[in-house]
Amino acid sequence: MKAAAGLVQFSSTFHSKNHLLFFNPFSSTLSEPLKKRLYSKVSGMASSFKPEQARVPPAIELAKPPLTKYKIALCQLSVTKDKERNIAHARKAIEEAAGKGAQLVVLPEIWNSPYSNDSFPVYAEDIDAGGDASPSTGMLSEAAQRLQITIVGGSIPERYGERLYNTCCVFGKDGVLRAKHRKLHLFDIDIPGQITFKESKTLTAGENPTIVDTDVGRIGIGICYDIRFEELAMLYAARGAHLLCYPGAFNMTTGPLHWELLQRARATDNQLFVATCSPARDPRGGYVAWGHSTLVGPFGEVLATTEHDEATVIAEVDYSQVELRRTNLPLACQKRGDLYQLVDIQRLNCQ
Amino acid sequence: MKAAAGLVQFSSTFHSKNHLLFFNPFSSTLSEPLKKRLYSKVSGMASSFKPEQARVPPAIELAKPPLTKYKIALCQLSVTKDKERNIAHARKAIEEAAGKGAQLVVLPEIWNSPYSNDSFPVYAEDIDAGGDASPSTGMLSEAAQRLQITIVGGSIPERYGERLYNTCCVFGKDGVLRAKHRKLHLFDIDIPGQITFKESKTLTAGENPTIVDTDVGRIGIGICYDIRFEELAMLYAARGAHLLCYPGAFNMTTGPLHWELLQRARATDNQLFVATCSPARDPRGGYVAWGHSTLVGPFGEVLATTEHDEATVIAEVDYSQVELRRTNLPLACQKRGDLYQLVDIQRLNCQ
Repeated sequence: MKAAAGLVQFSSTFHSKNHLLFFNPFSSTLSEPLKKRLYSKVSGMASSFKPEQARVPPAIELAKPPLTKYKIALCQLSVTKDKERNIAHARKAIEEAAGKGAQLVVLPEIWNSPYSNDSFPVYAEDIDAGGDASPSTGMLSEAAQRLQITIVGGSIPERYGERLYNTCCVFGKDGVLRAKHRKLHLFDIDIPGQITFKESKTLTAGENPTIVDTDVGRIGIGICYDIRFEELAMLYAARGAHLLCYPGAFNMTTGPLHWELLQRARATDNQLFVATCSPARDPRGGYVAWGHSTLVGPFGEVLATTEHDEATVIAEVDYSQVELRRTNLPLACQKRGDLYQLVDIQRLNCQ
Repeated sequence: MKAAAGLVQFSSTFHSKNHLLFFNPFSSTLSEPLKKRLYSKVSGMASSFKPEQARVPPAIELAKPPLTKYKIALCQLSVTKDKERNIAHARKAIEEAAGKGAQLVVLPEIWNSPYSNDSFPVYAEDIDAGGDASPSTGMLSEAAQRLQITIVGGSIPERYGERLYNTCCVFGKDGVLRAKHRKLHLFDIDIPGQITFKESKTLTAGENPTIVDTDVGRIGIGICYDIRFEELAMLYAARGAHLLCYPGAFNMTTGPLHWELLQRARATDNQLFVATCSPARDPRGGYVAWGHSTLVGPFGEVLATTEHDEATVIAEVDYSQVELRRTNLPLACQKRGDLYQLVDIQRLNCQ
């Protein structure tokens, strides 16, 4: 596995210093031509509404993606207690998806291990050490390079010194690790009689949002519970994401109510693609996943989905739809920066 | 109609000055006991995540509502070109709803006039002048007082000097106008061959978010397109809303895709009640409304809804569910104020 590169990073150097920071939320760094273009889209809307200030710093203009159309595969894998089998099984699914033309393959949350606080320390791998210390990501890197595809590698338990994280690795088609997202919002939930789980018993939350330029566009990464926090999706959209990928294992209580809802809401509000990938359901498992891996378009439409059994969803992503929907409903230009602002702390600190 | 009173107002006096403002987004005005209580809910979550700073100023703690359970009525009214008929028709629906025990009655967007840019100037009323200048709100005030109920009076075209607004009036059970919300985000949409509408041709957007304490709890108001802007719902939740009311007339394109989705998303993300009220569908009308007035609970569950014909939805609001869901999923305490912040500009300026 090669060294990390290519990450659209808003360096966390400043962030970790946690210094006091004063800024003027009414200032704007938009160029005059850009301002003119922005406002010209909104007939009759006075500039006093300051739509460009609804994001601090102002949103990055959507870049032209490296390609307009491609096939995405969501591998809803069965997961067992046998790690070697899980890795071989995932490799096979990735190969089959690539064989069907997928240029981006997404895996589920915690696909190499049972989803439990007991298992996380046992199955955890030292991703940075690589080699024998991380056979799961080694396989992903090798498969990405061999098959010439981008892989959003679901997540695995990561060991980093004394700490454990729930971590998603993104590999480019050169096999290089492009980004490593550590789940930011740990799954601590208590619905008595239905579902109680505390990831924070064993895991540590990540420190950085993760957005990465790949051969299939700019991708913002979240893991499962991260999807509940609309601020993260808003922040990724403002950083110019074309697609959000959420490997996730919702459960039998929140799955039916919220899984599709949250994906469609993030896609509709931010006018971009959202892809999710869950493990297949094992009713005998300790944690029973909802399944239903899904691709949602920028108008909130479910483009492809599946039930709870093992399956690979293959569907077309067409980024021209993002531009179309943003023209139909120019939400970004209609926001009221005079009333509310979403601040991206790390990006602000890097300015 | 009596003078306005009781509005939970974060004075717009400062706001209108549009002065430069410097603030420290990392500062916190939370008391130490409140901080302790906040953090104690989140085992294992380091305080370095600063959840209380995810809202600037920090979110107001949810106040105990004046009552826990009550009946809400959503009057999905048919609307004609005959304003007198529309007013009499709405009065009758309100009376029937009150007769069935409703303590809060919600009316549709633009219930006294056809929904069209041609009609808005013709049907507009001078709400502040009252009396003969505003028969529609006169009826609402009289009905609220006589029936001893709270009314979220949908919306009507408002004339204010040279300007026209799309305005929602909220009346207390004393008949007093408690709040006046002018639609903040005008409906300018262009989906060729399906739906094109530009409210900004005739209307002016409002200047202030509107949240109001009533006998049935603290209510945040949005009108139709306002629901697309998740920031407004987030801002109301941070101001302590129990319920969001969105009178709205989605159309036959965005209705099926987005109407229920957006209501459920706002309710789920902010863990509060959301009520919507649409006009009934008139397939012969110039603007064909989707209908489907709905009450959604704080877990994103549809509690009551209807199809597109004229109907009054009556359902129970149980605010104990808000507390329950916020205990099940303590989202506010799990937010990452170290990574993102939503700034409420007006509330900040009033500090």
